[in-house]
Amino acid sequence: MTDISATAVSWIAVDWGTSQVRAWALSARGEILQRASSARGMSTLAPDQFEGALLELVGGWLAEDRVTEVVACGMVGARQGWREAPYAQVPCVPLAGERMVSPTLGDPRLRVSIIPGLCQRTPADVIRGEEIQIAGLLAEQPDYRGVVCLPGTHSKWAEVRDGQVVAFQTFMTGELFALLSQQSVLRHGMQGDADQPMDEVAFVAGLHAGAQGSQRLIGALFGLRAEGLLEGLTPPAARARLSGLLIGQELGALDERWRGQQVCVIGGGELAERYRCALDTLGITALTVDAERVTLAGLAAAHANLQRGA
Amino acid sequence: MTDISATAVSWIAVDWGTSQVRAWALSARGEILQRASSARGMSTLAPDQFEGALLELVGGWLAEDRVTEVVACGMVGARQGWREAPYAQVPCVPLAGERMVSPTLGDPRLRVSIIPGLCQRTPADVIRGEEIQIAGLLAEQPDYRGVVCLPGTHSKWAEVRDGQVVAFQTFMTGELFALLSQQSVLRHGMQGDADQPMDEVAFVAGLHAGAQGSQRLIGALFGLRAEGLLEGLTPPAARARLSGLLIGQELGALDERWRGQQVCVIGGGELAERYRCALDTLGITALTVDAERVTLAGLAAAHANLQRGA
Repeated sequence: MTDISATAVSWIAVDWGTSQVRAWALSARGEILQRASSARGMSTLAPDQFEGALLELVGGWLAEDRVTEVVACGMVGARQGWREAPYAQVPCVPLAGERMVSPTLGDPRLRVSIIPGLCQRTPADVIRGEEIQIAGLLAEQPDYRGVVCLPGTHSKWAEVRDGQVVAFQTFMTGELFALLSQQSVLRHGMQGDADQPMDEVAFVAGLHAGAQGSQRLIGALFGLRAEGLLEGLTPPAARARLSGLLIGQELGALDERWRGQQVCVIGGGELAERYRCALDTLGITALTVDAERVTLAGLAAAHANLQRGA
Repeated sequence: MTDISATAVSWIAVDWGTSQVRAWALSARGEILQRASSARGMSTLAPDQFEGALLELVGGWLAEDRVTEVVACGMVGARQGWREAPYAQVPCVPLAGERMVSPTLGDPRLRVSIIPGLCQRTPADVIRGEEIQIAGLLAEQPDYRGVVCLPGTHSKWAEVRDGQVVAFQTFMTGELFALLSQQSVLRHGMQGDADQPMDEVAFVAGLHAGAQGSQRLIGALFGLRAEGLLEGLTPPAARARLSGLLIGQELGALDERWRGQQVCVIGGGELAERYRCALDTLGITALTVDAERVTLAGLAAAHANLQRGA
């Protein structure tokens, strides 16, 4: 971790989520000098343990003779996190810089600024961490107007216009998939290698069924078990059908105002590709933007705000 | 367990589910002489362990000098149970007597007959155990025509006409409630005493929201967490809202053909009462029938079929 010169590290970007933390050492010109990550996510730490966890991760990047700025987003700013960064309320810009908070630190080599999440009153919703990716998208495309999809355990959809987040919606799709496929009665028909390639035909069948206006999730789930018993639905097909059914429900439930708008999927890897493919199947062409790149662009925008404020 | 005279026991009724087994010693006139139950449900037993588990439960009720008839329903007849009793396919009478199966036994004092479940091809669905309650309802009310609701971990709805089960549908409502309230992110806003009385106002609010045609479950769940964070939604209210939302989704998803038909809720205790109350709130008056009574009436009808066949 110490094979870079601490003098070259201008500032440190941190994405501190519920279950893991990722950090980047950045040069003054914004180049990534090094990456680090650990499993010491917010849920594993008491408030007085965050500073130690951060030093463990980035201590080797710190200069001894000056203060290094750390800009952090994510659940680190939740009420149960290091220090609460109260939500900014939409409609607003995704980077509510004036609401950043700085926890008191023991180590004089650091200053930490935590970015607040966003909240919406009606219907009630909250976002914490993903707003930085929207800020990064807007840093790259200031005139972006449309809907942003952020897949994850909880996927987030946001409407962006005039540089602001106008509204957003959270779906527990990934968490429901995990609970249903691993812990419900449906698991009996889904056992086997979860890492094998997705059964595309079964995924698309589930997607169409889920996206139908008349199909309610609660009435469709047990059919996956029954088809396994009666028709020999295989575990890979059952898993793919469930994934399609849930993502189809999500796409079918999107705010009506968002239909016909441009869609941008922020993400990397298999899940983002699955969303893009699902949108494509339903006739919606979506841009895909790399999550790490816009996360860093958003944290860099927050860092620049701080520098201007200083 | 042996405080009744084995000579008075005419036959034994057994409801052998996934997680528990209940047995009744019955006189020739159908009186309940004694009840017994244990946690040795189907999921805890290998096929060669069922006879021992049954003897442990009802051994004291057996006469030494003759064969006592045992009639069993439920998951004991599943593929992973004692001996598979293959499904009868609807439309059919709920007691497909000619399909009962008898496992081979070591103890000469017993004869066991296992009642098959029902299956439906399109959409695929299965029922195993609840069909006996429908048979019991029809034993009491041979002309019953309407919809039967059987609340439970998986609630079952069946359309009954001319003494037959015409169609049925399974909802994983109870299982979803348990997973979401105990294991998902929503649990953080639902902790506390689950046994305290239901918050009726919150239940009804959830019910109306869930039953709305336009409300998708997947888009509504996270709002419970967000309202806890933003509006101070209390844990009892959040639990009740989730219960209402799920039961509302279930009632909203019922087969359209069933609207306007008579509804009979079979069950006992708090859950059946919650369904009856939900139906009432949505303007549907339902009969309520005691589950133990119709379970025994159904098993008695199966026993009588056996006697006639003998």
